[in-house]
Amino acid sequence: MIERVFIAGTGLIGASVGLALREAGFRGDGFEIVGTGPTEATLETARQMGAIDHWVPRADAQGEAARADLVLLAGPVLAIEDWMQRLAPVLSERTLVTDVGSTKAQIAALGAKLYNQPGRARFLAGHPMAGKESGGAALAEASLFRGAMWLFTPQAGVEASEIETEWRAWVMKFGARTMDLDPARHDELVAWVSHLPQMLSTALAALLEETFADAGARDQIAAIGGRALRETTRLGASPYSMWRDIALTNPEPIAATLHALEQKLAHLRENLRTPELKEEFRLANEFRERQQSS
Amino acid sequence: MIERVFIAGTGLIGASVGLALREAGFRGDGFEIVGTGPTEATLETARQMGAIDHWVPRADAQGEAARADLVLLAGPVLAIEDWMQRLAPVLSERTLVTDVGSTKAQIAALGAKLYNQPGRARFLAGHPMAGKESGGAALAEASLFRGAMWLFTPQAGVEASEIETEWRAWVMKFGARTMDLDPARHDELVAWVSHLPQMLSTALAALLEETFADAGARDQIAAIGGRALRETTRLGASPYSMWRDIALTNPEPIAATLHALEQKLAHLRENLRTPELKEEFRLANEFRERQQSS
Repeated sequence: MIERVFIAGTGLIGASVGLALREAGFRGDGFEIVGTGPTEATLETARQMGAIDHWVPRADAQGEAARADLVLLAGPVLAIEDWMQRLAPVLSERTLVTDVGSTKAQIAALGAKLYNQPGRARFLAGHPMAGKESGGAALAEASLFRGAMWLFTPQAGVEASEIETEWRAWVMKFGARTMDLDPARHDELVAWVSHLPQMLSTALAALLEETFADAGARDQIAAIGGRALRETTRLGASPYSMWRDIALTNPEPIAATLHALEQKLAHLRENLRTPELKEEFRLANEFRERQQSS
Repeated sequence: MIERVFIAGTGLIGASVGLALREAGFRGDGFEIVGTGPTEATLETARQMGAIDHWVPRADAQGEAARADLVLLAGPVLAIEDWMQRLAPVLSERTLVTDVGSTKAQIAALGAKLYNQPGRARFLAGHPMAGKESGGAALAEASLFRGAMWLFTPQAGVEASEIETEWRAWVMKFGARTMDLDPARHDELVAWVSHLPQMLSTALAALLEETFADAGARDQIAAIGGRALRETTRLGASPYSMWRDIALTNPEPIAATLHALEQKLAHLRENLRTPELKEEFRLANEFRERQQSS
C-alpha cells in the first residue's frame, strides 16, 4: 500500500500530483508526501500550497527516497534521467518509481537498464497529457489532470506490482483517463499531437517577430490580428527551458512531422489557384469533424 | 444622410451589418434596409432576424440599389466584384458603394475603374476583421464587430463624401475600430495575420487526416490530443467556399508567407539539437509578449 510518496521535482506537474493526491483522499496517519528539487523557493512554494508535507534538499534526496513506497520523478526529461541514475542504487525492490516526462523512448530504455530486475526497484514510465504555457509550482492545481489522458509505456514482460496497480487507481481518482502505449509509438504520436503544434506555433511567432521588425508594422499586426493569429501563435509563449529536452530526446519523430508539414505547405502554396486546394480543405474539414465527434 | 441601405449578400457579415445598424439606432420613418442575394432561404432568414426589412430577388437588384444611399456588398470576393460590375451603370453619383471583401487589391482596382469618376457612384473598399468558422445569416449578430478592426483601403486622391463620413461613423457605432491602409499593404498584412494561419491550420489538419488513416490510430490521436492540437487545427474546419476567392485574389502574398514559413520550419528541424532552437523560442516569446501587451 502506498503511504509514503517522494516527489523529485515539484514544479507544475509534480506539485499538481501532490495536490491531486490530497484531494483524492491520500491522508491520515502515516501518509506522507516529501519533496525535493533543485530550487528551495519552488519546494517552499509547493509546501505552502499543501502539495508536499515537507522537503529535503537535493543532497539528502537518496536517503529520503529510500523510505518511499512511490517515487515520482517530474521535470524536464534529462533531469528525470538524472534522478533515475541517482536513485536506482539506493531504492528497495518493492518501491515503484514512475515519471511524468514528455518523451518516453529514452526514459523507458533507461528504466529497463536500471530497474525492473532482481534487487532493483520497479519502474513504470508515464506521461500525463496536461500542462500550461508556463511551469512552476505556483500554477499547480489538484484538478490539472481532470479529463486529461495519462499515458503509460510499461516495459514489455514485466508483471504489474501491487503498488503499480494502486498507483494506476490513484491516477484514475485524479479524474484522468489512462492508456498504455509502446514507448516508441508514444513518442511518434506525441510528436504529431503536441511537439509539431508547438514547433509550428514557435516558427510562426518567430517569423512574425523577424518580419515585422519596425514599430509601426508591429502596431499594425497587433491591431489587425484576431483570434486566428492569437490561437496559432499562443504556444509561441512556451519557454525553451520546457522544450529543450523534448527536442533533444525525440528529434527523429519531430523532424519527420516537421518535414511532412513543410511538404504539405508547399503543396498548398503550389495549388492556391487549382481545385487541389479544395481537396486539402475537405481533408481538414473531415479531421475536425472527427475530432469534435469523438 | 444615409436612410436607404441596400445589402447585396446577406450571409454572416452582410446580415450582421444589418443587425448592427439597427442596434446602433438606424430606424425611424424612411429608414430602410433592403437585401438581395443568390438564395431566397438566406434572404428570408435575414429578414426574419430583422437584419433587413425586406428583400428582392437578384434579378430585381439593380432597380432597388438605384434608390439606395449606401450599397453594401458582402460575400466572397468574386461575388463582390460581380456586383460591382452589375451595379456601376445604374447607381447615382451620390450613392456610396462599400464592401466587406477579404482581399482588397483587386477590388480597389476595379473600384477605381468603375466608380469614383463623373457620373458614377463613389466606392470605398472595406474589410471588417470579424467572422466565424462557418458563414450564413443564421449566425449573424449585431455584436460581431464590437472590438474588431474594420479596415478601409480608400482610393488615393478621392475626397471623402458626406455619406462616406457618415458610414465611417456608423462603423464606429458598431463598436469597431478603424484603420486606413493601402490596398496592396492590406493584402500583404492579412496574408500574414489571417491567410497564413488558415493555410497552416488546413495543412496540419489535412496532414493528420491522411497520416492517421486507420480507425485505431484515429482513436489514439483523438484520445491523446489536447488544447495544443485543438487550437492549431481549429481553423481547419473553415469551408473551402469561404477561402477559394481569397486564394484566387491574393495568391502572391499568401505564397510568400507560406514559403517563408516552410523555410522557418526547415530551420527549426535542422536545429532541434543546437542552441539555435533557443533563439527561435526567444523570438517567439517576444512576439507573444508584444501581442499581449498591445
